[in-house]
Amino acid sequence: MSRPPARKPGKPGASGSQGKSSRGRPAPSAKPGRPAPSSKQGRSARGPMPGAPSREHRSAKPSGASPGAKGLGGRQVEGRQAVRELLMAERRKVHEIWVSAELEGDAGVADIVEIAAARRVPLRHVARAKLEHEARSEAPQGVLAHAAELPEADLGALMRGTAKTKPFLVAVDGVTDPGNLGAIIRNCDAAGVTGLLLPRHRAVHITPTVAKASAGAIEYVPMVLIPGLPATLKQLSDHKIWTVGLDDDADRDIYEIADLATEAVCLVLGAEGTGIARLTRERCDTVVSIPMLGRVSSLNVAAAAAVSLFEVTRARRRPS
Amino acid sequence: MSRPPARKPGKPGASGSQGKSSRGRPAPSAKPGRPAPSSKQGRSARGPMPGAPSREHRSAKPSGASPGAKGLGGRQVEGRQAVRELLMAERRKVHEIWVSAELEGDAGVADIVEIAAARRVPLRHVARAKLEHEARSEAPQGVLAHAAELPEADLGALMRGTAKTKPFLVAVDGVTDPGNLGAIIRNCDAAGVTGLLLPRHRAVHITPTVAKASAGAIEYVPMVLIPGLPATLKQLSDHKIWTVGLDDDADRDIYEIADLATEAVCLVLGAEGTGIARLTRERCDTVVSIPMLGRVSSLNVAAAAAVSLFEVTRARRRPS
Repeated sequence: MSRPPARKPGKPGASGSQGKSSRGRPAPSAKPGRPAPSSKQGRSARGPMPGAPSREHRSAKPSGASPGAKGLGGRQVEGRQAVRELLMAERRKVHEIWVSAELEGDAGVADIVEIAAARRVPLRHVARAKLEHEARSEAPQGVLAHAAELPEADLGALMRGTAKTKPFLVAVDGVTDPGNLGAIIRNCDAAGVTGLLLPRHRAVHITPTVAKASAGAIEYVPMVLIPGLPATLKQLSDHKIWTVGLDDDADRDIYEIADLATEAVCLVLGAEGTGIARLTRERCDTVVSIPMLGRVSSLNVAAAAAVSLFEVTRARRRPS
Repeated sequence: MSRPPARKPGKPGASGSQGKSSRGRPAPSAKPGRPAPSSKQGRSARGPMPGAPSREHRSAKPSGASPGAKGLGGRQVEGRQAVRELLMAERRKVHEIWVSAELEGDAGVADIVEIAAARRVPLRHVARAKLEHEARSEAPQGVLAHAAELPEADLGALMRGTAKTKPFLVAVDGVTDPGNLGAIIRNCDAAGVTGLLLPRHRAVHITPTVAKASAGAIEYVPMVLIPGLPATLKQLSDHKIWTVGLDDDADRDIYEIADLATEAVCLVLGAEGTGIARLTRERCDTVVSIPMLGRVSSLNVAAAAAVSLFEVTRARRRPS
């Protein structure tokens, strides 16, 4: 009914398409070598968030990690929904649940107490002050869990996809705000993303605040730490996965990629304020923007993620 | 149940459209009288957020407000982007800007100092402790403004729209989290929403946290306080504005309303966790959901707003 006029497959973006790539896929009008606008230059790689937990993660050694590198994190989970999902998912060992003493018998945590018992997870009622001292997120809601680190997904498997679903990957480039990363992960789960790629040194890892903001979606979205985004984007291209950067300064708008979206695709989300880095941008097959109709010139990165992820989902539901 | 349908059920856009309403618009399949799921019942009307400012607002008397009722708020604005937009918009009187003393000469606030001088707005450097004591949001970033209250828009004008743009309204039903309301307002600005309707007693008003989370979009999105949402939805219907509720428990999905979206339309967003209230739901022409493909069953209300608002925007860009 209401879809945009059907385009011929193999012609994304209609008029501006300039031929085919050597991989036999429709070639979006990528502009390699295009200099980034000056406001996006001079950005140094950022380290992990100040205040992000490090103690718990230090012993983790995911495969391929350099000595001393951190894993995904996620060993401490706070907030009722995040702890509930941790228990329900049964994806990793839960060592212990802490519930604030004054919530003993409280209906708001009854299901957590019940599921923990059913799963034989030790549960302790601890003094509220103790729990809040241990907590790292702003409002742990009287519930905290200690668990095994989040397992990393296998990039090879993510790139292959499944017989049923072509890869729908998301890569984040320098997202350092844990609330935003958590919200992005929640959006990824809702939109059916098949894998999330987190640069080891340019993104916040899964802290308690990320876990809480994700509403427990960290248990379900397959995640992998990558050494560097530009190299990984090259690898994705070699596996015939379209790489689509999201940036205010773009070649085309998000509504013009419906035919890429139905293929294997990776959306690349930029950092708050600065967008995607120049080198990352150059490795993307195409860069798209969400048309801004207002006076404030940008969306929050998690909101931009929601809009663009669901645009892929919409396109996949209704292939043109 | 109690309220008979104003319109015949129909399926806009689908092949089996069963006729037109008396107003000559395609009729969505409203299901009047449909009982709300039990989880959504028994919700009492909520008062303003605990901790929301009241002192500054008490003297405001927007037109039509009952004695003692609050206006929109917005008299205190915190955070750099919000204060910057307050100054740039020139939509209301700015009484004074406070900048934390240790930021004197700091490049991060140089533009604010400059614009304030150009606009002849008094600017004071105050001790950081004093500023943080006055601040009500979590991270005022060393900048705070005192301004006249936000002016209310006129509902009649919003319902008429303009020669160029049909009304694209948003109503929020019981959103009490100020961060979420601010994010929704930012999304409204970006998506080109022409007016936001806030129930006087069932939504948080424009507190400093809302202002900051909106990134200054409160200056641009026309807002009006309404006495009650069900009565206002009736009024919108009388003005031939489609009312579309967003709820997990829905008749159809958000992608099926493209032909409503190109008409005058009002999206109704429900509260965090509980969705839209039964009475509100019954007054909506149709209720739609965003398809959830993941394991965590819902989106954050601001993310849901982003997806649905931009779905309207997309439909309006490419009318079927």
